[in-house]
Amino acid sequence: MHQEILQYLETNKDRFLKELFELLRIPSVSADSRHQQDVLAAAEFLKKRLEDLGMDQVELLETDGFPVVFAEKITDPAAPTVMIYGHYDVQPPDPLDEWITDPFEPQVRDGKIYARGACDDKGQLYMHLKAVETLMQLNQLKCNVKFFIEGEEEVGSHSLEAALEKYAGKLQCDVMLISDTSMLANDTPSLCVSLRGLTYMEVEVTGPNRDLHSGVYGGAVDNPVNTLCEMIASLKDENGHITIKGFYDDVRDLSEEEREEYRRIPFSEANYHQHLDIKATRGEKGYSILERASARPTLDVNGIWGGYTGEGSKTVLPSRAHAKISMRLVPYQDHNTIARLFEEHFTRMAPPSVKVKVIAHHGGNPYLTDTGSPGYKAASQAMEQSFGKRPIATREGGSIPILATFERTIAAPIVLMGFGLDTDAIHSPNEHYGVFNYMKGIETIALYYNHYYNQMQEHNKVTANQA
Amino acid sequence: MHQEILQYLETNKDRFLKELFELLRIPSVSADSRHQQDVLAAAEFLKKRLEDLGMDQVELLETDGFPVVFAEKITDPAAPTVMIYGHYDVQPPDPLDEWITDPFEPQVRDGKIYARGACDDKGQLYMHLKAVETLMQLNQLKCNVKFFIEGEEEVGSHSLEAALEKYAGKLQCDVMLISDTSMLANDTPSLCVSLRGLTYMEVEVTGPNRDLHSGVYGGAVDNPVNTLCEMIASLKDENGHITIKGFYDDVRDLSEEEREEYRRIPFSEANYHQHLDIKATRGEKGYSILERASARPTLDVNGIWGGYTGEGSKTVLPSRAHAKISMRLVPYQDHNTIARLFEEHFTRMAPPSVKVKVIAHHGGNPYLTDTGSPGYKAASQAMEQSFGKRPIATREGGSIPILATFERTIAAPIVLMGFGLDTDAIHSPNEHYGVFNYMKGIETIALYYNHYYNQMQEHNKVTANQA
Repeated sequence: MHQEILQYLETNKDRFLKELFELLRIPSVSADSRHQQDVLAAAEFLKKRLEDLGMDQVELLETDGFPVVFAEKITDPAAPTVMIYGHYDVQPPDPLDEWITDPFEPQVRDGKIYARGACDDKGQLYMHLKAVETLMQLNQLKCNVKFFIEGEEEVGSHSLEAALEKYAGKLQCDVMLISDTSMLANDTPSLCVSLRGLTYMEVEVTGPNRDLHSGVYGGAVDNPVNTLCEMIASLKDENGHITIKGFYDDVRDLSEEEREEYRRIPFSEANYHQHLDIKATRGEKGYSILERASARPTLDVNGIWGGYTGEGSKTVLPSRAHAKISMRLVPYQDHNTIARLFEEHFTRMAPPSVKVKVIAHHGGNPYLTDTGSPGYKAASQAMEQSFGKRPIATREGGSIPILATFERTIAAPIVLMGFGLDTDAIHSPNEHYGVFNYMKGIETIALYYNHYYNQMQEHNKVTANQA
Repeated sequence: MHQEILQYLETNKDRFLKELFELLRIPSVSADSRHQQDVLAAAEFLKKRLEDLGMDQVELLETDGFPVVFAEKITDPAAPTVMIYGHYDVQPPDPLDEWITDPFEPQVRDGKIYARGACDDKGQLYMHLKAVETLMQLNQLKCNVKFFIEGEEEVGSHSLEAALEKYAGKLQCDVMLISDTSMLANDTPSLCVSLRGLTYMEVEVTGPNRDLHSGVYGGAVDNPVNTLCEMIASLKDENGHITIKGFYDDVRDLSEEEREEYRRIPFSEANYHQHLDIKATRGEKGYSILERASARPTLDVNGIWGGYTGEGSKTVLPSRAHAKISMRLVPYQDHNTIARLFEEHFTRMAPPSVKVKVIAHHGGNPYLTDTGSPGYKAASQAMEQSFGKRPIATREGGSIPILATFERTIAAPIVLMGFGLDTDAIHSPNEHYGVFNYMKGIETIALYYNHYYNQMQEHNKVTANQA
């Protein structure tokens, strides 16, 4: 079957690229109201292409914002259902003058497709349509397929939660498959199995009721900026461990296998330093840079301000000091619990000479793929088959807040199988996506369905035996 | 002689007030170019009044800015010379609508003269003219007198240093007497014997070469805001002592006598808390609030900034963090030495993960009156005679940078004998000065010359015997 797929891809490669280019030519910039019709045109384009595939049902689902393109193909009601999530909107192309070629007139240079959305997410999304086409044309699609393609991802997916709840009946599935992340390198396939969560706080420390003269009051009256600095400094110990009581209670240590996976990741500390122009990194003792950047929770001051910040000097003892402090969370930590622990800790440690106010901004829980699940195992097998190498399970340090929304409303496991590279310049001028990655993605996704079907058969057998 | 003085004052009180009111009516706001002619008019007014006194020589000394009013009366070339310093310019009256009566139409209410400059410094300066008049009319002026009255004190005395150097020949004297400070209360006379110096630094801590995503890099890369907070926190130990190596080397401990003087100062901690709306103060262990505010060196962050400081949340790991940090110094500390020690300490303690830049803003040395000097002893005796109470020697926490300039260029001891109160609202709407303070000031100053003459006689005798 792999050979049939490869042959179909070879035969249709030019058309697969041509179709993607048509989609890339539509400037569907969701952030810019002047492009409203273009965003809708992208939705219509995808609806048409999905109809062409021979899906059973294709429709635009109304939301409070741009519509969701929904499609489904029920091959066999008893078969497992894969739902594809992606988005048809793109980031604004600004700054325009830094683009070498028109962001909405795709061009292939050095084997890369240059266009806004080439990778994020039109290129990665369109692979899924072509993979399904391939399997349907070869009469090899064993799973049911649904598409759920939104048009507001680049502006915060505002309408998503309500839409997911409104259309929950249509959206039942066994796994959600998303290609909107990156892999380590074209010769180092990887699957993202974990994302960190986030608790974002803001604190205000107030001393005297007004700015004071630092000569007349300095030394006598507590300075809220000095005190805020002390409080922030005390949030970590000399080993970089966070001192908030209970902070690590739900954190699980990395297993030796997981640490071994990290060591497989090609990484040059010297390049990392050079890239950031630093002489050394600094963080939690006992963990490598990559572990600290993705598998361990953090505490970072994102902003701080207080007192006189203009030119020259002003001898003020400020009345107030402020900071924005966020914590990245790892699996099993809960963002609401951490917000509460932070507030209790920060309030408790304030000296009686200041008043403290703590507010919580947005937060989100960490995400973890069960690497023993049929959905993940199928992805790993598909990648190993197409790339010839078992993919590395990677944890990423950032957060994708919509995953939590999916998990809450759809209640299906999520598999993140992205084919982009970190160097693809998404959200930047000259965004691009390798033709290799596009075609390898279609191949891998096409292989995925078969592996997933087999994994589910196996899984159901085990579950039945256990019952 | 005291009785003669009191009688002369009683007889001439109405005229003394009337003359001051004429000076107060001139809106000599040096900061406002629309008042340039008014500032010059105030200088001319004083020149005329000094001529009326019968000074030997009165002139306007040209400077790069407003002129200095200079006058001298040489009674006896062998007698000691007292030079009066004061200023004829005033602060802007803004916000105008908060004044109960016109800032440039003096009015007496409840025994207080309300006008801009009533206390700072026209009222306190004009006392000196009237004290000299009194002594001259009573034929009791035993010392030589010089006046040095500038017109740019409220805008930073920019032309002062050059003028002092240019006219150094005219400005030789044995003591400089200045009434531009305040005393504790009308029934608690005091003399300011010490002012703190200042070292004002700015620091920049740089981590990565650009703002980073706190998800992707957080935990791995050092955050310069967190690190700046740690560095600032470490500048003091748990007892509030400054940890900079060598910082206290030149600080002398308060003597038991000096601490006893502090305990004589009427002070309510409860009022202090209420006034500033704080529940507690915090500072160096082992010292009282007043001692910490004036006799001990300090380290205060005057401003801090870095990262995202707008509304809501942005998950940035900032590239840079900044702070303005100043230290108030006490006698025998040198502001250049402290700047060097700070820079060395701050640079040394930076972890290798950040770069540090330290710059020095303006600074000034602390000031200390020798309480055993003839000038100070005469002031203390004059106050004890007029108020009926020995004045308390107070240290003030602020700095008067021009004192260092005087000490360097004139090389005469300085006596700060002010009669204002902290509640006189100088620099604020409804500035005022008590009629009691005005008349008591004239009386005390008139008494001063005689005491100073006697102290100098005594001093010269001792010096001669020693030689």
